[in-house]
Amino acid sequence: MRDLVRIDDLNREEMERIFRLAEDMEVLRMMGSDLCKGRILATIFYEPSTRTRLSFESAMLRLGGEVLGFADPQATSFVKEETLADTIHMVCNYADLIVIRHRWAGAAALAAHHSSVPIVNAGDDSHQHPTQTLTDLYTLRKRGRRIEELTVGIVGDLRYGRAAHSLAYGLAAYGARMIFIAPEGLEMPEEVCWRLQAEYRARFETVREPKEALPELDVIYMNRLQKERLPQDLDVSEVRRILAAYRLDPEMMKHARPDCLVMHPLPRVEEIARELDADPRAIYFEQSANGVPVRMALMAILLNRVDQPPLRGKVRTVRHLEEHVCQNPVCVTQQEPNNVPPQIEEPVDGRPMCAYCSQWVTV
Amino acid sequence: MRDLVRIDDLNREEMERIFRLAEDMEVLRMMGSDLCKGRILATIFYEPSTRTRLSFESAMLRLGGEVLGFADPQATSFVKEETLADTIHMVCNYADLIVIRHRWAGAAALAAHHSSVPIVNAGDDSHQHPTQTLTDLYTLRKRGRRIEELTVGIVGDLRYGRAAHSLAYGLAAYGARMIFIAPEGLEMPEEVCWRLQAEYRARFETVREPKEALPELDVIYMNRLQKERLPQDLDVSEVRRILAAYRLDPEMMKHARPDCLVMHPLPRVEEIARELDADPRAIYFEQSANGVPVRMALMAILLNRVDQPPLRGKVRTVRHLEEHVCQNPVCVTQQEPNNVPPQIEEPVDGRPMCAYCSQWVTV
Amino acid sequence: MRDLVRIDDLNREEMERIFRLAEDMEVLRMMGSDLCKGRILATIFYEPSTRTRLSFESAMLRLGGEVLGFADPQATSFVKEETLADTIHMVCNYADLIVIRHRWAGAAALAAHHSSVPIVNAGDDSHQHPTQTLTDLYTLRKRGRRIEELTVGIVGDLRYGRAAHSLAYGLAAYGARMIFIAPEGLEMPEEVCWRLQAEYRARFETVREPKEALPELDVIYMNRLQKERLPQDLDVSEVRRILAAYRLDPEMMKHARPDCLVMHPLPRVEEIARELDADPRAIYFEQSANGVPVRMALMAILLNRVDQPPLRGKVRTVRHLEEHVCQNPVCVTQQEPNNVPPQIEEPVDGRPMCAYCSQWVTV
Repeated sequence: MRDLVRIDDLNREEMERIFRLAEDMEVLRMMGSDLCKGRILATIFYEPSTRTRLSFESAMLRLGGEVLGFADPQATSFVKEETLADTIHMVCNYADLIVIRHRWAGAAALAAHHSSVPIVNAGDDSHQHPTQTLTDLYTLRKRGRRIEELTVGIVGDLRYGRAAHSLAYGLAAYGARMIFIAPEGLEMPEEVCWRLQAEYRARFETVREPKEALPELDVIYMNRLQKERLPQDLDVSEVRRILAAYRLDPEMMKHARPDCLVMHPLPRVEEIARELDADPRAIYFEQSANGVPVRMALMAILLNRVDQPPLRGKVRTVRHLEEHVCQNPVCVTQQEPNNVPPQIEEPVDGRPMCAYCSQWVTV
Repeated sequence: MRDLVRIDDLNREEMERIFRLAEDMEVLRMMGSDLCKGRILATIFYEPSTRTRLSFESAMLRLGGEVLGFADPQATSFVKEETLADTIHMVCNYADLIVIRHRWAGAAALAAHHSSVPIVNAGDDSHQHPTQTLTDLYTLRKRGRRIEELTVGIVGDLRYGRAAHSLAYGLAAYGARMIFIAPEGLEMPEEVCWRLQAEYRARFETVREPKEALPELDVIYMNRLQKERLPQDLDVSEVRRILAAYRLDPEMMKHARPDCLVMHPLPRVEEIARELDADPRAIYFEQSANGVPVRMALMAILLNRVDQPPLRGKVRTVRHLEEHVCQNPVCVTQQEPNNVPPQIEEPVDGRPMCAYCSQWVTV
Repeated sequence: MRDLVRIDDLNREEMERIFRLAEDMEVLRMMGSDLCKGRILATIFYEPSTRTRLSFESAMLRLGGEVLGFADPQATSFVKEETLADTIHMVCNYADLIVIRHRWAGAAALAAHHSSVPIVNAGDDSHQHPTQTLTDLYTLRKRGRRIEELTVGIVGDLRYGRAAHSLAYGLAAYGARMIFIAPEGLEMPEEVCWRLQAEYRARFETVREPKEALPELDVIYMNRLQKERLPQDLDVSEVRRILAAYRLDPEMMKHARPDCLVMHPLPRVEEIARELDADPRAIYFEQSANGVPVRMALMAILLNRVDQPPLRGKVRTVRHLEEHVCQNPVCVTQQEPNNVPPQIEEPVDGRPMCAYCSQWVTV
């Protein structure tokens, strides 16, 4: 494995290796380093970002490397109708590692298929955001928590939140217990629950009311409403009204345990009251800071700049399909059908999933 | 003081220290340097810029440091409704120094409140632009002029021009004489005049007609109409018609002294005729070039890369207000009231001012 | 010559020198280099780009230099109505080399007129794109082809394609034979044909039908429809319909010789079928990769970082005109008439051309 497309490509031991290296990186981060001198990172972002893009760039610069790329596809050949596949064929000639964020699910997988250099997924629609999860787990670990013993409440828009999906797999790999807390229509997707069950035998349950679960939680992981991904016919103001009941504020936090950590992939909008920032249990800013050493570690491994065996990744049974059947309109198999070999994953039990967007397909 | 938010935070001796260091930087600028190797500058620009952003970036690269950031907030979490305070909490984890331009007055002060690394104000609405003033004064000094002995005419849109406001304080710190030349409605704000009077005992007067003042001036400092900041109900074409009488061209320059320097923070639009570029008294391109050594010096000091005592800054008497009263709609206290402690400055004599946007408040 | 504005400024011997140096750069590209340490490249792009901008940036970073600039004029003083001349006067203070792409023909020439550092033209409207041609010829040379012996078909929108214009001059300098294959209305401009004839005594002909020429070709050079440059009254869908007959696909390639190379400056849209990517004769991705060593070589020469005599460039007879006569609405002489000395080229035989946009003028 030379790409990081999905967090479920990594097993627990591999994540631990990244985390141990990230600890060493905390020093290099302060002192500077030439570990990646002469190496170039390309950040190609088709969706808005600050945290993810800047933390990757900061990480590469701290490693002594260089950065190029774009943050706004409107200033690129995107407007001249270039395909993503062709863009990747080009960019991999100009950089040694590509970090991509895209509004299509499976975009990073398509990129990995066409690239001669490692690809890291920085978010592909509502599918996955694996380096956010590495950052999240590293934060818990650095706080001295044993992840396998935790009960983690994942709260809010779990349907469209890619950070939430990746986190669930990451926690499952450790064997943590999860409680999904979301209103009707924004629950964790059926496919994610199925995979958690089938591949991880994960411990999770779903509740409607935050207060029900709050007293049990070691960690509350809040999520922003992904309003840019909601179906167009949805009444956003109505959804926001419903989500107001999930808002975390000092009053709500009275129900939480004294050592319960509050996390958020950020940016937050209304789901966490600003008054909570002063609460020592609120560690979301610390969490965003941890993105740097984690991404330093990951990139140093992918670029072979540290004396470590490569990440092996998970071998999955895939089946090629002559006829393409994924129905997800934002899946790369719909958007650039000629540039990805149509594949489904065939799990031991259960329905086949699209190998790109992880949604169920009808064969 | 580790931030540069307002030029009136610096006294004359501190500005002189920056200028002496800037002279040394002229050499490093040509030869290259590793003075800031391993240090990262973040440029976060919420308003268009070329000169200011690129000169900061050039300065940091000439010092051997690195740069990240954004020039267009539309490609950032700004569009996901992230607050400026939250953005700063993040960016200060990814960089060692932040330069910010924003369309809210007091934005840099808010940033300084939330940042763990130094903040430099690169323009906050029509409030201030302190590094422009450092560049301006350095240019005069490099030209061999004794600033304290000069009579400087500041011409054009003095109401909304942040460079003009900062310049007035900078000149006042040196004891220079100033003539403000502006049409009705675009005069230097009452607050600026008041502070010049109360804090600097400055020598200044206001005239309506450029030709009245021209023969007396050692320096003519032209300003662009800040059309993007004018009240919406104003007739821009009418304002431009009136400002036409303030336009500097070879004909007008016949009234100026043979050694009178012409300056402009740039970009210029119509206020300086292109034919003037060939006049040896026109030094605005030289002025824009001087932004690099000045910003190199400032950043080297703020990052503690030179053997100099830190800048102390001015101690001001501020008073916390429970009830927020600044009426300026583009002040940060209106835009992110929860993220700034409401404060007024209480001068020895005179009305209290908002500690962020420097406008008068009714208590 | 310290600028590269037009490919016809270089003679064959000078291009060969760049190519020989580019070969050496292939090694530095892999191993990294400090050849341009301390030097800053400014990329100022007023039109969308990925390949050209990123390959220049990658090239400079591989040489150990640094990069600043902008990819989107909307975030710059462009929106404050700054002229290109004033922008150049500024940027040349912040960088050691400027690469510019602009929507005005002659923009790079105007920039060269105002800059104190070397200017490289990365595309000026439909006029020229000289570094694309260097990349194209280097690719052929690297493939072991003797350019002077080749028959090259240049296909598609030859009227508005700047890469096609520059390529024709580049091939002519080597004495290659050219066949221009384009539908009515999109033929190679009369001015280009005239110059090829008058200055190069070039061997070229024009055909309407691709299949006519295909069996003769050593190289097929495809071009994208420059839809952003078409006259507004043109029916784009009708043009696309006509161009469909020029589309290259496996069926069409049956008529091509077994060793016929397929090139394209990219991005492609519909003019090359994706199925062709697997054809070993399709070398457009290799071609885009070659942009890096070629641009490394060019910049190292222009920045005097290699022990080579400077490029001399072509001396042209120009005549100053008091009255401006170029009728091309997107020519810099129309857009910023005060910032360029009106000049025409006076060839030995033939009509005078605008020295900026290379279109015929009526004197």
